[in-house]
Amino acid sequence: MTRTPFTRRRLLQSLSAGLALGPLASLSALAQKPVPPAPPSLRGLFTADEMHSAHQLRELALRDNRSYEMLERLTTEVGARLAGSEADLRAVNWAVDFMQSLKLDKVWKEPVQYPVWERISESASVISPFPHKLQITALGHSISTPEQGIQADILRVADLAALKALPAGAAQGKIVFIDHKLRKSSEYGDVASGRSRGASEAARKGAVALIIRSVGTDSHRLPHTGVMHYDDGAPQIPAAAMSNPDADLLNRMLQRGQPVRLDLRLQTRSAPDFTSYNVIGEWRGTELPDEYVLIGGHLDSWDPGTGALDDGAGCMITAGALDCLVRRGIRPRRSIRLVFYANEEQGLLGGKAYHAAHQQEISRIQAASEADSGQGPVKRLRSYVRPEALGIVRQMQEVLAPLGVAAGGNDGHPGPDMGVLRDAGAASFSLDMQADDYFDYHHTADDTFDKVEPARIRQSCAVYAVFAWMAAQSPLHFGSGPALKKS
Amino acid sequence: MTRTPFTRRRLLQSLSAGLALGPLASLSALAQKPVPPAPPSLRGLFTADEMHSAHQLRELALRDNRSYEMLERLTTEVGARLAGSEADLRAVNWAVDFMQSLKLDKVWKEPVQYPVWERISESASVISPFPHKLQITALGHSISTPEQGIQADILRVADLAALKALPAGAAQGKIVFIDHKLRKSSEYGDVASGRSRGASEAARKGAVALIIRSVGTDSHRLPHTGVMHYDDGAPQIPAAAMSNPDADLLNRMLQRGQPVRLDLRLQTRSAPDFTSYNVIGEWRGTELPDEYVLIGGHLDSWDPGTGALDDGAGCMITAGALDCLVRRGIRPRRSIRLVFYANEEQGLLGGKAYHAAHQQEISRIQAASEADSGQGPVKRLRSYVRPEALGIVRQMQEVLAPLGVAAGGNDGHPGPDMGVLRDAGAASFSLDMQADDYFDYHHTADDTFDKVEPARIRQSCAVYAVFAWMAAQSPLHFGSGPALKKS
Repeated sequence: MTRTPFTRRRLLQSLSAGLALGPLASLSALAQKPVPPAPPSLRGLFTADEMHSAHQLRELALRDNRSYEMLERLTTEVGARLAGSEADLRAVNWAVDFMQSLKLDKVWKEPVQYPVWERISESASVISPFPHKLQITALGHSISTPEQGIQADILRVADLAALKALPAGAAQGKIVFIDHKLRKSSEYGDVASGRSRGASEAARKGAVALIIRSVGTDSHRLPHTGVMHYDDGAPQIPAAAMSNPDADLLNRMLQRGQPVRLDLRLQTRSAPDFTSYNVIGEWRGTELPDEYVLIGGHLDSWDPGTGALDDGAGCMITAGALDCLVRRGIRPRRSIRLVFYANEEQGLLGGKAYHAAHQQEISRIQAASEADSGQGPVKRLRSYVRPEALGIVRQMQEVLAPLGVAAGGNDGHPGPDMGVLRDAGAASFSLDMQADDYFDYHHTADDTFDKVEPARIRQSCAVYAVFAWMAAQSPLHFGSGPALKKS
Repeated sequence: MTRTPFTRRRLLQSLSAGLALGPLASLSALAQKPVPPAPPSLRGLFTADEMHSAHQLRELALRDNRSYEMLERLTTEVGARLAGSEADLRAVNWAVDFMQSLKLDKVWKEPVQYPVWERISESASVISPFPHKLQITALGHSISTPEQGIQADILRVADLAALKALPAGAAQGKIVFIDHKLRKSSEYGDVASGRSRGASEAARKGAVALIIRSVGTDSHRLPHTGVMHYDDGAPQIPAAAMSNPDADLLNRMLQRGQPVRLDLRLQTRSAPDFTSYNVIGEWRGTELPDEYVLIGGHLDSWDPGTGALDDGAGCMITAGALDCLVRRGIRPRRSIRLVFYANEEQGLLGGKAYHAAHQQEISRIQAASEADSGQGPVKRLRSYVRPEALGIVRQMQEVLAPLGVAAGGNDGHPGPDMGVLRDAGAASFSLDMQADDYFDYHHTADDTFDKVEPARIRQSCAVYAVFAWMAAQSPLHFGSGPALKKS
């Protein structure tokens, strides 16, 4: 392999000569020549040759539009993929065919069980002081209202903490309105707690229903759905979200000092047992094939949109990254496993099922990193590895730096579905994505393919390609096992 | 009246001293001292004192937030105002109370007749090749589909011209899909022709329904409604619009070369006779009170939003401008008349009724200018006056120039409802507004108060206040009458 720097100009010449379509000489060599053994030292680092190859891979992947094209296919040919719906299994079948088309070494499904929840109809209006129709959506797992709806005055609270602080009976007969505005993506966890836990808190104060300000950063009449849970022992009341402009309207009415009365109508359907699948593909490593780097996203989406950003993007960023290696025959030392998880949205069911099926192999997971924050670009690399591997992590970041990826700490988290693996001791990586507009579209009808920008998704794909290859090629084990297990 | 320049700094000092709440000395003098007679020459111009007062008025109005507050009231206390609906008359009653609260000299209603059209339900989905729900809305005046819907393949045409060019029978049994994208506001008239006239054109080619790409510049899942008309003699077929992302989706399906089959379901209601009202208020002039400057907007809106930009903004920009004079007791030579028109959206019915009732007084209309392009800011002043008055127009633009208002030609148009007055010979002004985002929200559920920016609406109010005062104070008649009549 030549050590001559493979400059941007030479790369572009190669690309324009059509070489990008077939294996490039220098990279295909990686796949064919015997892999040198990993340096024995615990302080091992990538060789200069390996670093050179990683730089080349970054530049190649950055010019590859496959993730975008794959996402176009998923959002067009499948669309919305609500867990437990007819579209769930249609998506699984599509995903199996899709992974097989990538020519991975192995593609398989693993079953995941969960209940069905579906919306049938939803509407709300202000009855007084001023009649208005509201744009609302039922929260996932909400029960129905009576068919004739619930008519009651609203009681506004600023957030979940304010609701908890109310005296007993303070919401008797009311529809509690949690008015917690999501101002930036970093507040999501805090603000979403009102969505997931508000209904039971409100019910304990005597409320007859919950309606929340959408957990979204936009100002459009498209409400944001999302999952909620009923606490054992608390009365179950219906729960919905209204769009941000509708919440603003209610505030303007409340400022006039008059009671605001709503009519809320939700019809939903639940059923106990549904079987779906995690869809999994593997590209075998050359030297340590039983160790693997785990990447992927979740295949399910909420029903109003087509799950382009949440999480079609994550699935296809990681699929594109792996495809970038497979098409060129590039096999690193360890395997790379791509998982499209079932039902993340309603409780990380696919992630939990994967953990249950694979809990004996935590030490074989070299690194885990799910993509589930939209289309990118990736802005920072954080790891969760044994200290001896931090030199390798620094080399990874060095390769990614030209893409705008900053170095982060060793506090990385692998994403929602893989979180349970980290808790069990799996080395993990956060490829933190820019999320400035992610919560504009999240869980709304607006989560559609037109929001995807090719340049953003190309960068994310390139970052995942470099990450996956370097993690799988690493001369060091990242330390998955009891030592990394969450105490 | 002192000629000392009333500098911005002194003005701000006055405002901070609370003087803005009461009549300012220099402007109230305008209201109280005898108005000097207009110069006799046809080449008359504003005096230096009048120009000074106009500059002062501009600065005062620019700091006045009343238009914004008035619009908050209309959109909160009334909301959607579909012509012919229950909300139409509720809006009229609200508007009468509102105008009376402004303490104008006279407030009255004039009847306007039109049929009722209302949507009951609307839905559509792609049946094949890939099932998807679509976000659609019935076009105003569309008939219903059968209750079980219409199931048919789509025939895509680029625009209305392409539809017209099809051979006879080319759309037999199809749902015609007009895929004409609105890229910028200046194309609105051309693109909207597909909405207003597409159904009859499609029916003549054998189509069973029409569905169009929304006439909007946004990329959200909120379809844009709007009026359509059936030609006499053509078969009547149902007509709807889908959101831009849905139209993009259909295109992606069509690119795969397979037929795309839809299920379209619309239920609408029509009734023959409805009586609503133009709501009119007048502020009497001192010297020529039977001549008047006509300003206003249309009170009706489409039903999905609350008509904040279309055209609550126009109503309240002009109401705020007049209020800026009234609160300070400033009476120009001529009267100023504020009209909130009924039912602009479904065929300029209020404008036509106003013309019918006032066609004998065209020469008494000193100038007409409706605001119906959103919240502004106003970017250009165009007139339609006799040549002798162009010097006055130049003086008006000179006062408005610090607000960013450029000089335009003498080809001005007074807006949709007042267009018929211009055709009949009324001198007219275009206060052309920036419309870069207007067609993002136009005729959608997203036309709500949160989209209104106080600084933009303040500028528009200031421009209308200066325009209305200068036009009413003008030493010259602008020439309304037979000489300006459209031949």
